[in-house]
Amino acid sequence: MPAPSDQALLLYSDSAHNADMRYFSGLHVPDPFIALRIGGKKVGIFNALEFGRALKESSLDEVLPLEPLRDQARERWPDVALGAADIILLAAEKYHVDRFFIPEDFPAGLFEKLRRRGLALEVVAGPILPEREFKSAFEVRAIREGNRIAAVGIGAAEQVLAKSTIRKDRLMFRGEVLTSERLKFAIETACLEAGGVSLDTIAAGGDQACDPHNRGSGPLRPNELIIVDVFPRSQKTGYHGDMTRTFLRGRASDAQRALVDAVRSAQKAALKQIKDGANGRDAHRACVTVFTEKGYETKATPSGSIGFFHGTGHGLGLAVHELPRLSGAIDYPLKSGAVTTVEPGLYYPGLGGCRIEDVVQVTATRPRLLSDYHYNWELR
Amino acid sequence: MPAPSDQALLLYSDSAHNADMRYFSGLHVPDPFIALRIGGKKVGIFNALEFGRALKESSLDEVLPLEPLRDQARERWPDVALGAADIILLAAEKYHVDRFFIPEDFPAGLFEKLRRRGLALEVVAGPILPEREFKSAFEVRAIREGNRIAAVGIGAAEQVLAKSTIRKDRLMFRGEVLTSERLKFAIETACLEAGGVSLDTIAAGGDQACDPHNRGSGPLRPNELIIVDVFPRSQKTGYHGDMTRTFLRGRASDAQRALVDAVRSAQKAALKQIKDGANGRDAHRACVTVFTEKGYETKATPSGSIGFFHGTGHGLGLAVHELPRLSGAIDYPLKSGAVTTVEPGLYYPGLGGCRIEDVVQVTATRPRLLSDYHYNWELR
Repeated sequence: MPAPSDQALLLYSDSAHNADMRYFSGLHVPDPFIALRIGGKKVGIFNALEFGRALKESSLDEVLPLEPLRDQARERWPDVALGAADIILLAAEKYHVDRFFIPEDFPAGLFEKLRRRGLALEVVAGPILPEREFKSAFEVRAIREGNRIAAVGIGAAEQVLAKSTIRKDRLMFRGEVLTSERLKFAIETACLEAGGVSLDTIAAGGDQACDPHNRGSGPLRPNELIIVDVFPRSQKTGYHGDMTRTFLRGRASDAQRALVDAVRSAQKAALKQIKDGANGRDAHRACVTVFTEKGYETKATPSGSIGFFHGTGHGLGLAVHELPRLSGAIDYPLKSGAVTTVEPGLYYPGLGGCRIEDVVQVTATRPRLLSDYHYNWELR
Repeated sequence: MPAPSDQALLLYSDSAHNADMRYFSGLHVPDPFIALRIGGKKVGIFNALEFGRALKESSLDEVLPLEPLRDQARERWPDVALGAADIILLAAEKYHVDRFFIPEDFPAGLFEKLRRRGLALEVVAGPILPEREFKSAFEVRAIREGNRIAAVGIGAAEQVLAKSTIRKDRLMFRGEVLTSERLKFAIETACLEAGGVSLDTIAAGGDQACDPHNRGSGPLRPNELIIVDVFPRSQKTGYHGDMTRTFLRGRASDAQRALVDAVRSAQKAALKQIKDGANGRDAHRACVTVFTEKGYETKATPSGSIGFFHGTGHGLGLAVHELPRLSGAIDYPLKSGAVTTVEPGLYYPGLGGCRIEDVVQVTATRPRLLSDYHYNWELR
């Protein structure tokens, strides 16, 4: 059940990995901390290591130091090994709360302990902070900035590929065989300089690129499709960009050109479906229709799937994967303000893989493009 | 209760952030997946996006594709919105398991769903894979490599500081005012080139460094203590290094020298306490004793704590913070094979902060140093 916004919320996680915690606190904290929403008030409890910074930098209404609560708990329950449960019980008392809503990813261990000690907890199905899906003007700017950083990374990759020379079945860059690792280094360094951290960057060529989560390793080859997927986090805001382009250094075959054309056509078809009130599934189906009409088959094989076997898009913000979803597997109503990637792809070992990805915001009419990079891909 | 090693385990998380999942599967997967230990066999269930890579690269004994199980679940429970719970129930049936042990951080939402549908789940208190604390020869090499990367980062920072010139109350580097951001860029680029990703790098000077988790921003100043804390993850193995040095460009005051000497003395005192059978708390107390004897007071103030107010060390491996712990707050027996940081610090706004951190492995005698960087800090 959704949590009514006047109900008490309890969160417990770090905010470096947990986007709800980051959204709620406005603070980057690497270790788990307790956060509460009581009435409209946002409260965080921090140990000495974080307290000073939380006071200065968080968006919380109240920042409590952990240590006095710890002392109090030790006095109250001298026989219990002290933990987060004790602190939460004291806080519940302090704010006169006997029932909290918690997110699905709340830790089961703490959940059990608190229930056993008499605190009522109710798991909220779906997002605990549903407002996260709909981006404010500030957030849209932050995501545009994330995509600007992503474009810097993609641009760095394109430059390296364009400057590489072809020697037999290898690409050479500055006197060395060009590898996926070298290309990722160029991308990640460029992103860092632009103010972002690009983790798990993908720069994969040939059959490697047909595993969409294979990040790529070893030599890159001429005349081969190379997928470059960059989803950096802005160091300043914590928001992400997410962009994919597929390049080829050398000369493309007709089959490669047809593949890339099909993917770009599918992306355009999906974009046409995206507006307030539409279903994410229909955007996905628009891609499937384009691929089917052009004769691209999707099927599972013993060594993995081929064709188009991932969703068309996912929400983007403080997390790289969030709501909404554009997927064949579920109905998901799109609403104004939501931000999503649009990234169809086709993958055929032997021929290669292609994915093209941009980011848009849903509006009442045409989606607003939040990413900007050209679509030229054949680098002769 | 600890999980006997022949009992069935159930895990559900991604392995990019969850170190248990990475340890268990040997695979970096950005989205949550189901993992099971049945008897001695390790099983993972992956969607089409990950299946091919899991087959090739994981250390699992069995890799199952998600989609056939999804189809089966849809047929079996046509009225239920399909989710991980359905797949887990089918897997439990397949392997004839009616009770799973789960980790404390298992998601509460899934926990409730599975219990309601009749699967017995028991939360394991403490680590679900306790063997993670004791590092194999391979892991020790990986952590040494992590620290080699950290040392490259620290070295890059030292070089930039050493090459900076002093202009009034500013440091100038290549014609520009040297900032924390610029120093972090030098560190993170150097780590990338050395094969690691350094996230949340700290390069903080003056009073900023007195908040130990303040990462630093704006101009760095001469004659001021600058804490540089780098904990990169090796891109190849996923293991971390973690190293801190404190530098000063210019000329240190007597008080600054005394502070740095005290911290290094505390670190040496802690190292003497670390061996098989010792208590992590005693290593921490050794630091406290050094500081107390030298007259360094620790206390809470309205704007944050001063003195020595964090633990002396934490385990290091696939996670930056793991077991064991060297802390005043808990008893923790140290055992051969465990790997821990040793990182006392002192923080006094006005005077500055200092922390020195190395990584060691516990043995029956003296700890084995797994990090290597000099301790010269005053860069005149």
